[in-house]
Amino acid sequence: MDIVSIIEKKKLKQPLSAEEIAFFADGAARATIPDYQLSALLMAIRLNDMNREETVALTQAMAASGDQADLSSIEGVPTDKHSTGGVGDTTTLVLAPLVAACGVPVAKMSGRGLGHTGGTLDKLESIKGFRVGLTMEDFIAQVRRIGLAVIGQSQNLAPADKALYALRDVTSTVDSLPLIASSIMSKKLASGARAIVLDVKTGSGAIMHTLEQSIGLAQVMVRIGTDAGRNVVALVTDMGEPLGSHVGNALEVKEAIDVLAGRVTGPLLEVSLALGSRMLVAAYAAATVEEAEARLLEALRSGRGLDKLREMIAAQGGDARVCDDVSLLPRARVIRDVPAPADGFIQSMETMRLGNLTQHIGAGRREKTDVIDYSVGFVLHRRIGDFVSAGEPLATVHCRNQEDADMAELTLQNAVPILRHKVPPLKLVHAVVEAETVTRL
Amino acid sequence: MDIVSIIEKKKLKQPLSAEEIAFFADGAARATIPDYQLSALLMAIRLNDMNREETVALTQAMAASGDQADLSSIEGVPTDKHSTGGVGDTTTLVLAPLVAACGVPVAKMSGRGLGHTGGTLDKLESIKGFRVGLTMEDFIAQVRRIGLAVIGQSQNLAPADKALYALRDVTSTVDSLPLIASSIMSKKLASGARAIVLDVKTGSGAIMHTLEQSIGLAQVMVRIGTDAGRNVVALVTDMGEPLGSHVGNALEVKEAIDVLAGRVTGPLLEVSLALGSRMLVAAYAAATVEEAEARLLEALRSGRGLDKLREMIAAQGGDARVCDDVSLLPRARVIRDVPAPADGFIQSMETMRLGNLTQHIGAGRREKTDVIDYSVGFVLHRRIGDFVSAGEPLATVHCRNQEDADMAELTLQNAVPILRHKVPPLKLVHAVVEAETVTRL
Repeated sequence: MDIVSIIEKKKLKQPLSAEEIAFFADGAARATIPDYQLSALLMAIRLNDMNREETVALTQAMAASGDQADLSSIEGVPTDKHSTGGVGDTTTLVLAPLVAACGVPVAKMSGRGLGHTGGTLDKLESIKGFRVGLTMEDFIAQVRRIGLAVIGQSQNLAPADKALYALRDVTSTVDSLPLIASSIMSKKLASGARAIVLDVKTGSGAIMHTLEQSIGLAQVMVRIGTDAGRNVVALVTDMGEPLGSHVGNALEVKEAIDVLAGRVTGPLLEVSLALGSRMLVAAYAAATVEEAEARLLEALRSGRGLDKLREMIAAQGGDARVCDDVSLLPRARVIRDVPAPADGFIQSMETMRLGNLTQHIGAGRREKTDVIDYSVGFVLHRRIGDFVSAGEPLATVHCRNQEDADMAELTLQNAVPILRHKVPPLKLVHAVVEAETVTRL
Repeated sequence: MDIVSIIEKKKLKQPLSAEEIAFFADGAARATIPDYQLSALLMAIRLNDMNREETVALTQAMAASGDQADLSSIEGVPTDKHSTGGVGDTTTLVLAPLVAACGVPVAKMSGRGLGHTGGTLDKLESIKGFRVGLTMEDFIAQVRRIGLAVIGQSQNLAPADKALYALRDVTSTVDSLPLIASSIMSKKLASGARAIVLDVKTGSGAIMHTLEQSIGLAQVMVRIGTDAGRNVVALVTDMGEPLGSHVGNALEVKEAIDVLAGRVTGPLLEVSLALGSRMLVAAYAAATVEEAEARLLEALRSGRGLDKLREMIAAQGGDARVCDDVSLLPRARVIRDVPAPADGFIQSMETMRLGNLTQHIGAGRREKTDVIDYSVGFVLHRRIGDFVSAGEPLATVHCRNQEDADMAELTLQNAVPILRHKVPPLKLVHAVVEAETVTRL
């Protein structure tokens, strides 16, 4: 087998065999195939596509290229959830404790913030002492003991994906459905969960801007997981505006705690319940979504969800007192209200711009080596469709200094158009995607 | 300007601007753009094509990336001829002396054998002492003095093409019309000739197998040259069988001398006259092709053509006595007739296989560092359409040893099918291609 004939085949729009795909994934992981050949192949894939079998084969080959978590010693069905990335998207911190409180083991490997989107690891690290770098043994032991752990991906998880992803970024081959889907799913498969719920975002703050693209991506990912023998379902949820009202690492932890403590309801809770209930069903812990949702709400009301979060924070070395006193979280030096520039209804939000704003004021990284300021971010006081009067606080910005606050204020006023005509609020969940069926809501 | 957005643009099938093309050609030549980005771009070009303007811009940028010969001090119109590569294709050695003998300066930079095709430099070096590595000054001085020089390309001729070509070879992006055409033409433009006649081969021994593909390539190349202000015309000629009867370096020199001495006529002379007469017309030395051909034939009959070859060989340090005594050329140790295995008519020839055979027995290089044996090759005694009786010599092989001769004999018998039904001889020249017109013959 040689790489030039594999490139040739894809160039001629012919499907690659599983052996050929394994050959180049392995060559990418072990750096035995030069980058210039991999990038020519990536461009051929981007332009000539891959069919379902090829995409599944690529995912499995990339998953098999490094460490694979063996969760078989965990009782029950180890369950994971993955989001394609959003702004103010704190569902993991809400649903993981609730799901675990219902007896379903949640063994989750998370990522860091990337571009305009936040990352669960960064959020958790805003809790003093919290460790995301557990060994595989400690990770599994913790899930066995308390039913919940959220850690970073091992360095050697899907190294083939790591190599190909680094090339895609610099060769304009990121926007390929089979490459996006296989990249995400290779890490999910290697992470070992038997049941996986995917949250595919759609709208102005998502990698896929249109509903049809998002459904397409969801379907490819669900099929990959299903063909690999996992229980997988995807929800396509809205990212036309930040999901929670809080954006920024410590701010999002605060909001998650507020939700788990029963102080706050709204879209973040609703989407967390929608995703969490699918996790219970996928793990065979509930027969219907309705039954599952009722159990999650009972865990919320009884306080068992917040207890579980407290337990996880303590288990991973963090200061669990934040669950009872959110003022222990890092607090920004400059906190300032942003007045609405006009009377009217919130028409839309440039969500990606809002995500980039948090990065610019220090909540995210522009370079891998940037140090995050956990305290900064902003809180939105209105959602799309809400009315606001000129001068009323549209948002509150949390910044390191007055210059950042000035910039944040200006960006928020510009990224959130206010006009006189009424618009409806956004629908939160657009579709449920299973391997062969798409249910539009 | 950045390379990722250039790749992105071509990925989205948008035409690149001349500035963008110059940016990446320059980056390729100076190795400031990494290979993995160039190869992604090459694959995007292979799959999404380039229009006429883009192809011209790429050619000019590659030509400008290194040395450019300034032939302005040469009186008359410096004229060049280029073949896309064939087997037994010795036209340069026949037509260059004839054209120069008619007063048109021939300033030709040639290449070495590549794959199954022979190279004029290798052929000339089979003449004892012949030097192909003249300096630019000596090259121009020789053309000014005797009207003819054939040398190797300078090391720094179109380095952008050199870099891109090396990548194309290993990324399955060789077979792209704009990339093939711009690669050839960039070197032609940098070589400085004002009039260029292209010989685009078609058939089993050519890079383009079908007539339509060959005409397409010819048209793109002619347009590039025309748009760059050169007088360019192309002939599409047949490579369904070796052009001359002799294949191999010294053997082809011998045949060229035989033609110039008036001892041999046939397809090699015919095609040389067809190309040479277009050179005279392109250089404004004849008003019509018929007039030009008459002048070339007069140069042949009078012996002035052979005189010119003798003069060039002497000027470049070679043993010019070969022009009068071909037995001074290297002679193989084993010379053996290959009997026809059956009675019948020659149906066709696997010309590429015959070209590869000469490479295998030592006339060409498999690796860049291989040393050529100038003496080896073969002579065909029949052409397509000819009758042969079983046992009559079909060919004569010239080899280093009996093993090679055995292999050559077997290959020749297999690559030249003989059947009972009559077939017509091949047409030699299929089309004349000018910038906006194609004349099929």
